[in-house]
Amino acid sequence: MTGAEQLRNEQADFVASVAGELTGFLTSRQGIMSGISPDIDPIMGSISNLVTGGKRLRALMCYWGWRGAGGDAGAAEVVTAGAALELFQAAALIHDDIIDRSDTRRGGPSVHRRFSQLHEAQGWALDSGRFGQAAAILAGDLCLSFSEEAFTDIGERAASGSRARLIFNLMRAEVMAGQYLDILEEVAGPVRDRAGAVSRAQSIIRFKSAKYSTEHPLALGGALAGATNDLLRGYSAFALPLGEAFQLRDDVLGVFGDPLTTGKPAGDDLREGKRTVLVALALDQASPAESAFIDSRLGSPELDDGDVQEIRRIIEDSGALQATEVLIGEYGNAAYEALEALQLDELPKTALRRLAEATVSRAS
Amino acid sequence: MTGAEQLRNEQADFVASVAGELTGFLTSRQGIMSGISPDIDPIMGSISNLVTGGKRLRALMCYWGWRGAGGDAGAAEVVTAGAALELFQAAALIHDDIIDRSDTRRGGPSVHRRFSQLHEAQGWALDSGRFGQAAAILAGDLCLSFSEEAFTDIGERAASGSRARLIFNLMRAEVMAGQYLDILEEVAGPVRDRAGAVSRAQSIIRFKSAKYSTEHPLALGGALAGATNDLLRGYSAFALPLGEAFQLRDDVLGVFGDPLTTGKPAGDDLREGKRTVLVALALDQASPAESAFIDSRLGSPELDDGDVQEIRRIIEDSGALQATEVLIGEYGNAAYEALEALQLDELPKTALRRLAEATVSRAS
Repeated sequence: MTGAEQLRNEQADFVASVAGELTGFLTSRQGIMSGISPDIDPIMGSISNLVTGGKRLRALMCYWGWRGAGGDAGAAEVVTAGAALELFQAAALIHDDIIDRSDTRRGGPSVHRRFSQLHEAQGWALDSGRFGQAAAILAGDLCLSFSEEAFTDIGERAASGSRARLIFNLMRAEVMAGQYLDILEEVAGPVRDRAGAVSRAQSIIRFKSAKYSTEHPLALGGALAGATNDLLRGYSAFALPLGEAFQLRDDVLGVFGDPLTTGKPAGDDLREGKRTVLVALALDQASPAESAFIDSRLGSPELDDGDVQEIRRIIEDSGALQATEVLIGEYGNAAYEALEALQLDELPKTALRRLAEATVSRAS
Repeated sequence: MTGAEQLRNEQADFVASVAGELTGFLTSRQGIMSGISPDIDPIMGSISNLVTGGKRLRALMCYWGWRGAGGDAGAAEVVTAGAALELFQAAALIHDDIIDRSDTRRGGPSVHRRFSQLHEAQGWALDSGRFGQAAAILAGDLCLSFSEEAFTDIGERAASGSRARLIFNLMRAEVMAGQYLDILEEVAGPVRDRAGAVSRAQSIIRFKSAKYSTEHPLALGGALAGATNDLLRGYSAFALPLGEAFQLRDDVLGVFGDPLTTGKPAGDDLREGKRTVLVALALDQASPAESAFIDSRLGSPELDDGDVQEIRRIIEDSGALQATEVLIGEYGNAAYEALEALQLDELPKTALRRLAEATVSRAS
């Protein structure tokens, strides 16, 4: 077996184990919930559906963080940690889609839309949109609790006061803080000083995404395996710029991505009013008239395809797209350099390099 | 010192300790959050504000469950458990108020209204209502995570697989399931069979309220102190009917309560479209025309004070109010009988009797 095959097999085994763990976990909870009332099945179904798909980026970062710190291949603790991260991500997506009024997720309806559709199909009373939103708030809360239950199931290594527990707690609090800064910038950005907009957008990226998607999951895996502080610092030096590149790529895809590949409508970020680094750079570098146009359309429910086209043109012509691509390259390079400096076995190092490549150059 | 004084002092000490624990906990998290950005202060402020008030019913049930099972007065574990329960309750209230579109909480604005008002006061862009809702979803998520952090802080006695942990997990899942059944009944109730409405409303009460507000907190305290299974069964026999009486009283106050005492607008439950036992009994016992009137107004945003008056009249004249008061009396008596049958020291038994009296006869 070549190194590349070994890596593929081991990674596939882990992903399958996480999927199995999630199925087992949700099946046991399904039993409890059905005992209360079969009416709750759609809530459980919406959670199962969401944890079935996805790239498993966070679980994989956790796994290779664990392996890099000397953890055994396929050990139970890291599988459970991966499942807890996936459940947390599902909870975050459910609430995120309500907040951003996103009707689609991975090409299908988002959870609040599923429940609105259920309401309509059943001919229920009152407002279907409100019902969908309320049901999705509760589905997200339940999923958040499940994520915690799974995390506790890790046992001793994730007990009160353990380093893994502290990382998990910090990860949750920081991503919620970052999401608040994100929605705050949508409404406060237009009246705040434009000079600070790019740095505010970078801070949002760091907390809502980079720390959450790559830095903390990698550190969590490392901490579970008893990584030294030195190794954890090295992990951060790699994962933080990688996460920043990851989110900048996400921002580019949110404006320029192909709906068939991303599973999201074209220009979705613009309709949601996201003031990303990409947008902040455009506002800074475009003509006053063009910036005013972006400001007037961003977050507008009436934003149409023509507006999306025009904003895309401004972002390209102002040089903001190119500047963002340069930033992605720089962050990516910083990540690769930090990775090469890490004292890791060949297998986890190669795995992390592959993950980094997929993250920076992805199209969905 | 008389027994009554001892009880008052011990209870006051515990409530003060929980308040101190909450302040310490939130102050430490405030430090982390301010480090990310002072912009997050209003989120932390909204959580602090919410855990400052309230009746501390759940924390007190937990405390006397602990004491009844032989736990020491004022021990750290039960104080931390009380703080975790209060944080969980605050998280539930934040999301509940979004779901129910409640603009007030304890006489002040609810969290989503606070953020809408902040938006308006600052002259921010886009929609203040949407911003308020999004911020409150995130504030509730953060508070839910905090509740878990606090619970884990209990340590060994609440570790993975412990009985206290299982109760805490079940409590969270059941209250979320109960809340979903509650919003489902609002929309599906009008098209479901009327004959089953009262029993559906009773099932909702059990899961969203009775188990959550009294049964599980009492059992949690007991489990932390190492209660026998017999004692836990006895606790349930007392706390479950008590919790049912508690919620039925809440339902009566939601329609007939004095806004000055409840801190909620008159007839708030009717505007929210809650299909409580009280309402289900009225729909069952009123004339077809009166039932049709209730059905047409329940949950309507246009419900006015005249409608509230008329629905109150129908609930009274149909005998539903009296029937609910009889139920409250019956559940209360069942709780008292079960309490007397418990093998408890005089102090916790008296304390639980007092809590039960306050719960069943309260006016707010």
